Amino acid sequence: MPIATPLTTLLKITHPVLLAPMDIIAGSRLVTAVSRAGGFGVLGGGYGEKAWLEQETAKLAGLRAPFGIGFITWSLAKRPELLDVALAAKPSAIMLSFGDPAQFAAKIKSAGARLICQVQDEAMARQALDAGADILVAQGTEAGGHGASRTTIDLVPAIVDLAVGRVPVVAAGGIADGRGLAAMMMLGASGVLLGTRFYASLEADGADEAKRRICAANSGSTVRGIVFDLSRNNVWPAPFTGRCLVNDHARRWIGREVELMQNVAAVAADYAAAKVSGDFDIAAVIAGEAVGLIHDIPPAAEIVERIASEAEQLLAGRRNSIASLA
Amino acid sequence: MPIATPLTTLLKITHPVLLAPMDIIAGSRLVTAVSRAGGFGVLGGGYGEKAWLEQETAKLAGLRAPFGIGFITWSLAKRPELLDVALAAKPSAIMLSFGDPAQFAAKIKSAGARLICQVQDEAMARQALDAGADILVAQGTEAGGHGASRTTIDLVPAIVDLAVGRVPVVAAGGIADGRGLAAMMMLGASGVLLGTRFYASLEADGADEAKRRICAANSGSTVRGIVFDLSRNNVWPAPFTGRCLVNDHARRWIGREVELMQNVAAVAADYAAAKVSGDFDIAAVIAGEAVGLIHDIPPAAEIVERIASEAEQLLAGRRNSIASLA
Repeated sequence: MPIATPLTTLLKITHPVLLAPMDIIAGSRLVTAVSRAGGFGVLGGGYGEKAWLEQETAKLAGLRAPFGIGFITWSLAKRPELLDVALAAKPSAIMLSFGDPAQFAAKIKSAGARLICQVQDEAMARQALDAGADILVAQGTEAGGHGASRTTIDLVPAIVDLAVGRVPVVAAGGIADGRGLAAMMMLGASGVLLGTRFYASLEADGADEAKRRICAANSGSTVRGIVFDLSRNNVWPAPFTGRCLVNDHARRWIGREVELMQNVAAVAADYAAAKVSGDFDIAAVIAGEAVGLIHDIPPAAEIVERIASEAEQLLAGRRNSIASLA
Repeated sequence: MPIATPLTTLLKITHPVLLAPMDIIAGSRLVTAVSRAGGFGVLGGGYGEKAWLEQETAKLAGLRAPFGIGFITWSLAKRPELLDVALAAKPSAIMLSFGDPAQFAAKIKSAGARLICQVQDEAMARQALDAGADILVAQGTEAGGHGASRTTIDLVPAIVDLAVGRVPVVAAGGIADGRGLAAMMMLGASGVLLGTRFYASLEADGADEAKRRICAANSGSTVRGIVFDLSRNNVWPAPFTGRCLVNDHARRWIGREVELMQNVAAVAADYAAAKVSGDFDIAAVIAGEAVGLIHDIPPAAEIVERIASEAEQLLAGRRNSIASLA
């Protein structure tokens, strides 16, 4: 029997498992696979490429399952017209991360979509609730890609305590299996949002070599910092940094960020070439600490089913072991 | 009904809640209170002061409940005779953290005590298992005091996967309530070890002002680094750093560690004076990220009972909500 939570009710989904809107990686193919499996696919709107967004939302037109579209808030603010493209696709929700959601909330909600806001601390959570967020995603530092410094086990109960009785909280960062879903539910979360686990799926729009490196990596093989943003001339506002797999490029520059900035033109040219050629000794594979739990590249539907069924068994198993003590 | 796990069976305790052997703070009074409440008190042997250890173990002589004694392994190696003092007190277990436990394992086990080893990554866990550890504590970076960089939600499943079928795993770092205990059990842990939560208890041997600051702090108010070790002329081996509350001294020196080292004589004199006078704007309050969950200074027994009963209710509540879906 599926795990029902306020989140599954609100989003009308079977399993409390959300796809993180990974830029480039979470395209319509992956969104379709996750949503058809009973999870909630969220398209990676990312920085906002209009042609890509139009193409991918068109492919979602036939999807008879709830889905969302995610944006980087501070980047969307530079191209606000993309929100109209997104809303025209009739998503159940728009997910905004990294910036004040207030400026977009009214348009999203009046279009009938739910507003999901990803937050990294209590101040951001209060800002999102004030803006009318329907769901909060509490993202710990374990997450791949951009995020901040607080850990999942620290942040999730703090945001749950803030949101209790108001909106469901989804936990993100370091989660890749049913144990993580069950654990986050014990902390008060109504579901989980996973990026890296779905990156290593058949339907993710990533390079095979990147997926292979995620499977081979250990938990200790990632690092959070600003080297990859500096190297691609894409500086983010504080307090956001990015987590990726440690590779030759990261080993070379971590701790020497000032020197990197002083040589950024040459470094950025090399980095851009590496991205094009798929040289992941230089280009970053953006991934979170959950890599240690990831060892295969299955269809996304199988991932959703595994996580849901493992969590169901854990929660039911706990019931039995408690019952046996009665 | 109490939560039974392989850990409670092995240590013959009622609740799977262990006291972290906080140096200075976890004296015989706190150990007694935790163990009498059905948890497992572990005396903070710390760096190893012989007179203190003799005095505190003497006070534990009448305790008719299982307890342990903890040491910093690399420091115990300099004063190995302290292990004899500890074993003479007939503890149920010796807990070793930060260093290779192999040199002490035979003596501990032949004295009839269990060997608890705290580890921060898989290599240390393998080393501890090879040495004959009976219990592993997987300590995430959220923990107060010394530790390393991996987060609890990342480390616990990794260590559980390594130890499964061999020894129970205890989760440490960022845990202060029953939600944390229930969550860690979902990740496969058999119990939890808490430091900061018990620091803020009546029986902890800490300054009232330090306890008050723990209650007032938010989760984001701690920092991991080497400033406080440098400031007290107590440099630890890599990869260990220390987490404490951010105070004026931390704000002044974090990011300027090299400069601190160049001025260490003057800084250390000020720091030592501040420790004596209880000036916690300079002296560190050693505490973990769980401070955000801590708002009072109750008797330790009440902390054990609260955590156990909250976890029991959560696990039972989950049973009921699943049952209601059947």
